[in-house]
Amino acid sequence: MPQHLAFDVMKSTCPSRTSLARIANKWTAMVVIALSPGRMRFRDLRATVDGISAKVLTETLRDLERDGIVTRHMYAEVPPRVEYELTPLGHTLHTPLRPLGHWAEAHITEVLAARESYDARQ
Amino acid sequence: MPQHLAFDVMKSTCPSRTSLARIANKWTAMVVIALSPGRMRFRDLRATVDGISAKVLTETLRDLERDGIVTRHMYAEVPPRVEYELTPLGHTLHTPLRPLGHWAEAHITEVLAARESYDARQ
Repeated sequence: MPQHLAFDVMKSTCPSRTSLARIANKWTAMVVIALSPGRMRFRDLRATVDGISAKVLTETLRDLERDGIVTRHMYAEVPPRVEYELTPLGHTLHTPLRPLGHWAEAHITEVLAARESYDARQ
Repeated sequence: MPQHLAFDVMKSTCPSRTSLARIANKWTAMVVIALSPGRMRFRDLRATVDGISAKVLTETLRDLERDGIVTRHMYAEVPPRVEYELTPLGHTLHTPLRPLGHWAEAHITEVLAARESYDARQ
């Protein structure tokens, strides 16, 4: 039996629901996509994920580190250097998250047309 | 050129970012997964997406309807019957969202172990 059948995100008490909440998140998606090519420093990551605040990026990285998706490398330099990298588990998450970003980019024209039509009916 | 290359979710001013925010969301993921087999009434949908409040489900469905992902069918019966269904656009979203739920279910054991390890280090 595939392992995922033992868990069910549709059940509110299933622990997998807490993982879905973390990964089905726009900041998680963008950070994982940004880190996919390789490790990055905080400031470069913040520049890549345009518009993310330092506070939200810090929290997102800490949550992803806690869930085993991102790892932090600290170098005892002056000033200290910190880099973030996807773990092997984090790389497996890029596979479902990258298509989500592509969907948003591929279908935004239809979404905008739907919004215009919806708003005109209200 | 593939259409999605014209838009970039990494740019905060790109309209596709607003679509990513909507779809990279745990409730969106669960509602789209739940509606994938066919149309459902509100109460059945709420029972399937275990733990969602009526308020959040109402808001999620309204947002998805506005974005052209869900359509609402109203029947002039007594009492009135309302059913929700994925649009053709909504069905294309099931393709990237279903693997996200599977990822959460398949990797929750690793995620839980990572959390335990992280919390022990704090």
